[in-house]
Amino acid sequence: MIQSKILKGFRDSLPAQEIVKKKIIDTLEKQFSLYGFSPIDTPALEYTEVLLGKGGGETDKQIFHFADNGGRDVALRFDLTVPFARFMALHRNELTIPFKRYHINKVWRGENPQKGRFREFYQCDFDIVGPDNPTSDVEILMMMYHSLKSLQLSNVSIHIAHRGLFNAFLRHLHVDHNSVEILRTVDKIRKVGVNQTLESLNESTGSEKVSQDILSFITPVEDENPYDTIRRLSVLAGGEEEHSNRLRNIYSTLKSLDMADNIIIDPSITRGLDYYTGIVYETFLTDLPSIGSICSGGRYNDLASLYMKEKLPGVGSSIGLDRLIAALEELGSPFLDSTRSSDVIIFNTDNSHIDYYQRIALRLRELGVRVDLYLEKKKITSQFKYAQAHNIPFGIFISDEEKSLGQFTLRRLSDRTDFKEMQIESAAVKIGEEV
Amino acid sequence: MIQSKILKGFRDSLPAQEIVKKKIIDTLEKQFSLYGFSPIDTPALEYTEVLLGKGGGETDKQIFHFADNGGRDVALRFDLTVPFARFMALHRNELTIPFKRYHINKVWRGENPQKGRFREFYQCDFDIVGPDNPTSDVEILMMMYHSLKSLQLSNVSIHIAHRGLFNAFLRHLHVDHNSVEILRTVDKIRKVGVNQTLESLNESTGSEKVSQDILSFITPVEDENPYDTIRRLSVLAGGEEEHSNRLRNIYSTLKSLDMADNIIIDPSITRGLDYYTGIVYETFLTDLPSIGSICSGGRYNDLASLYMKEKLPGVGSSIGLDRLIAALEELGSPFLDSTRSSDVIIFNTDNSHIDYYQRIALRLRELGVRVDLYLEKKKITSQFKYAQAHNIPFGIFISDEEKSLGQFTLRRLSDRTDFKEMQIESAAVKIGEEV
Repeated sequence: MIQSKILKGFRDSLPAQEIVKKKIIDTLEKQFSLYGFSPIDTPALEYTEVLLGKGGGETDKQIFHFADNGGRDVALRFDLTVPFARFMALHRNELTIPFKRYHINKVWRGENPQKGRFREFYQCDFDIVGPDNPTSDVEILMMMYHSLKSLQLSNVSIHIAHRGLFNAFLRHLHVDHNSVEILRTVDKIRKVGVNQTLESLNESTGSEKVSQDILSFITPVEDENPYDTIRRLSVLAGGEEEHSNRLRNIYSTLKSLDMADNIIIDPSITRGLDYYTGIVYETFLTDLPSIGSICSGGRYNDLASLYMKEKLPGVGSSIGLDRLIAALEELGSPFLDSTRSSDVIIFNTDNSHIDYYQRIALRLRELGVRVDLYLEKKKITSQFKYAQAHNIPFGIFISDEEKSLGQFTLRRLSDRTDFKEMQIESAAVKIGEEV
Repeated sequence: MIQSKILKGFRDSLPAQEIVKKKIIDTLEKQFSLYGFSPIDTPALEYTEVLLGKGGGETDKQIFHFADNGGRDVALRFDLTVPFARFMALHRNELTIPFKRYHINKVWRGENPQKGRFREFYQCDFDIVGPDNPTSDVEILMMMYHSLKSLQLSNVSIHIAHRGLFNAFLRHLHVDHNSVEILRTVDKIRKVGVNQTLESLNESTGSEKVSQDILSFITPVEDENPYDTIRRLSVLAGGEEEHSNRLRNIYSTLKSLDMADNIIIDPSITRGLDYYTGIVYETFLTDLPSIGSICSGGRYNDLASLYMKEKLPGVGSSIGLDRLIAALEELGSPFLDSTRSSDVIIFNTDNSHIDYYQRIALRLRELGVRVDLYLEKKKITSQFKYAQAHNIPFGIFISDEEKSLGQFTLRRLSDRTDFKEMQIESAAVKIGEEV
């Protein structure tokens, strides 16, 4: 006998979990399609050199890679961004720009499993490639907001900054040659606190004055009007206009789309990566800030530079599905209710009625009712237990007499209320009213 | 620069393909949920020994396996059946029997890519574990039929045989010790023809008479009534009753559920694998028989014997999604029509109207209309080209005057019919009528 064990950092998804995950993904896909975004997929396995590029970073140690039967060095994708860049380069001529895509699928990383971190997990990415304009920036932010709203997460704050503006500020301070290091330091301020950030900045800039200036720049001023914030940042950056105008333009459109309450201009957002050049953002749940950002991203000016000469600017975002699910669970979200596998169960009390049960099931299904037929004539307590385990709200009982009249009894299982003399249509209506 | 190449036998899924795949999977999942089946998922990577069991077969050479960073021998799953058996053994105490699950996801095999065969492909499996009775057999067959029907594939023939009946027949002929070999030979008759089958049977049985008897047993008699077929087979098997009664029972229920026209009792169906013990079936498209079976399976008496002592009987089936998609394409199926990414596009003809465009888009989306806003003010011909490439049926134009009146023009793009003086609600209704 072989032990039915599973690899460390990997998980099975049981029905209760899988139903929730599918419901969340369906809801997100529904929103994305309302915005004209199309789905794509890429292989789980790619050439290692294609995924790692020049390599040498932390990622190299974390990926699952090996030699396949043909001796090729292959790897499981560790994110959906790199395969997307490769995809755009390979299919550039088959695609129309602007290209709006989303991609929801698994990625794999060999990092040490921790609480809430796994070696196999889902990512959900969406991007607009082609235009470099505020209209696209706004569309991504709108879609983010409305996607979260469709998951009944309305209390969200999208914190937005502009990397171009921040870089202009660093240039104004004459420390732009250290910008990568400074960006990474600032990115960690929520984790390590103000003091350690200041210390690290001192090391990078060699000047306490400059470090203090950077700290002022990134520290939000309470109750400041967002337009005032943008103006203040622009002044601190030596009167910079291009990026601050863009940020103002974006904010003003979002305001006109009733999103003002959910947008915070927050210069402490930098996103560590070199990659971003325009707006950057993170999204926090007002009711559960400790869980961190559930949706982040930004604007970049060159998606696929590793694989092609054409510059492909874009703006995109990524939702951490596992974190999102954890958040919904921790919030006791009503969105997770009603994750039942069916609407009604036909109790099997007489083997000679089986054909009749099947016909009733079939006709109810034709009306869109999700019907489970209990497949064995077992003790009714076993059947109740099954219905309860599956969270099924209604049951159907059929006696000899009812069968001869083409009727049956519908029972609401929560309070054992019986509805007598039901027929297919009336039962479908009754069930439809309550589920 | 790195070449944006992709591994042999692997494919990207572009929007047009991915939209089709998602539509098919959604439709199948909708049907499965009407029958009370729940989704599950398992990891892509498992311990190699868990996936290969005792090993030694063809599968061993085909799987992608390697040593991970911790030195564990791990492999990508090559089907969804083995992980399901492992899953049942591991979670037996958390699950309620009968357990009805489906699983749609990717599997990987290192076999040499051929036309229509890939190293990464989708499987779609569904099983009922627990009961060993005709009710469950019927439910699987019903669900198969109605799932294919929901894909607008009504011209299907489900060919059913019974392995128990066939084994009784072989026992009656005193050749049951060779049953595995004989089963495999018979399984190939569609591929290799009658003569070569007879030759192989001669080798296995050592008797021309017995081989001829086997051939008679598995050869359908034209226009024979199915009940007569079952009776004839039962007589040939020495008056066997248990399995032929079961088959009769199943057929009669399917007939009462209006499936008689789509069911063929066909003793040539054996399914090569040792694993099956009861009914076995394959499903052919009447309009495209050459493509082979698109949905096959059967009843087994012990799912997880490799991992646990408890016997778990069940009945299940598997849809080859890639073959199914190929079939729908070859049939020019109307099911594949209307795979557009959105219902309407707002043409961007005036940058100063952007906020207004966004508001109209937002309000239409709130009414469930899928709206693409063209994100740049480009030449209108570019915008038309984009709409055409995405197969978008409607466009919206907004002039200064219309904007001031809160109106716009809706154009049906196929014939350039304009609907003037439209507002949000009237446009949503008009679009809803036609898409």
